[in-house]
Amino acid sequence: MTIGNSRNSISLPEPSLRRLPWYLAYVKLLRDKGVEYVSSTQISKEINVDASQIAKDLSFINIAGKTRVGYEVCSLADALEKFLGFGSQHKAVIFGVGSLGAALLQDTGLAQYGMNVIAGFDVNPAIIGTCINGKPVYDTVDFPSMQQKLDACIGILTVPVDRAQEACDDMIAGGIQAIWNFTPYRIKTPAEIVVQNTSIYAHLAVMFNRLGRNSTSK
Amino acid sequence: MTIGNSRNSISLPEPSLRRLPWYLAYVKLLRDKGVEYVSSTQISKEINVDASQIAKDLSFINIAGKTRVGYEVCSLADALEKFLGFGSQHKAVIFGVGSLGAALLQDTGLAQYGMNVIAGFDVNPAIIGTCINGKPVYDTVDFPSMQQKLDACIGILTVPVDRAQEACDDMIAGGIQAIWNFTPYRIKTPAEIVVQNTSIYAHLAVMFNRLGRNSTSK
Repeated sequence: MTIGNSRNSISLPEPSLRRLPWYLAYVKLLRDKGVEYVSSTQISKEINVDASQIAKDLSFINIAGKTRVGYEVCSLADALEKFLGFGSQHKAVIFGVGSLGAALLQDTGLAQYGMNVIAGFDVNPAIIGTCINGKPVYDTVDFPSMQQKLDACIGILTVPVDRAQEACDDMIAGGIQAIWNFTPYRIKTPAEIVVQNTSIYAHLAVMFNRLGRNSTSK
Repeated sequence: MTIGNSRNSISLPEPSLRRLPWYLAYVKLLRDKGVEYVSSTQISKEINVDASQIAKDLSFINIAGKTRVGYEVCSLADALEKFLGFGSQHKAVIFGVGSLGAALLQDTGLAQYGMNVIAGFDVNPAIIGTCINGKPVYDTVDFPSMQQKLDACIGILTVPVDRAQEACDDMIAGGIQAIWNFTPYRIKTPAEIVVQNTSIYAHLAVMFNRLGRNSTSK
């Protein structure tokens, strides 16, 4: 088994998978500083995850540490980046080019992490036919035909809540395999569709609530 | 105890708190359709959370359902919105006006959920002194003095990983009480600081990995 192909064949538990980008961020920092080796104990101190858990998480990506010195920093960074798919390009479209959707079309940072947002879709005639950051905005009704050419596998969902399920269904009908849901609506999808919810509103709710509690307890 | 003040005095478990925006989104949909009452069983079917859990979550916000008919939709929407703090304005600044930071400055949607992003801070002379979406971008070194006037309580962290801890420390020194961390770096903060990590990269990692697995299993 080679490292480059391993991501397709291993079923890593989601909590492990979600920790890997933390390790990658830290290991890249070390690489940029010219550090040669890092141990799971060192990563543990920095990331606040148990060292044995880190060793277990890293065992999934088929890279072995050396006794006493630990993992070779450059190899670990490369292996993590490949395993996570951040080095490949995954084509994505955005449904809902309102404020957040337009902001995500502007964000060139996603491409550096393997996400290539190639087009937006909306129902608003005022923005259909425009370009944002060089990315065209098409009419949602044209998605099935456009998708023949675009061949996107990821759909980013930033429509209003009352259109979330419909837009989600349209994306899946057009061949989208993974949905990145930014709405606070709980979309329903067939089991084979990958769904990730980025709950901006949940994060706001926690911050506001905890801030309110801190200010009364002072 | 009034509903308006209750958010400051109750320590709601974080998982409950994170579910409340889902309920709110659904209940607002019902309100817009003119529905008068909703039961926890109905919400349960829609949201895919156990009905008894929903009733428990909602018990924290001090609104009682009526036997047989359930919760009054308009009152529940209002109570949830107030409890979550989405009706108030919380002042925030963004540290790191790169691609993602600039995108968040563009996003007017946050203001509708109680988050008022008032300024950006960066170290890049090319963007210091500019405005994005009417929001000024200042020099990071001027944060302590600017903060006297701005009085922001939330800091949004969108700097490169190698500057994440430093920027976080600067924000806290300037009086920031909550940090919304968009970097994959695990920031270290005093216990009284509220931290929410929005792990965009973790979500990308999960999507890419599951997509790869699906395509080989087909």
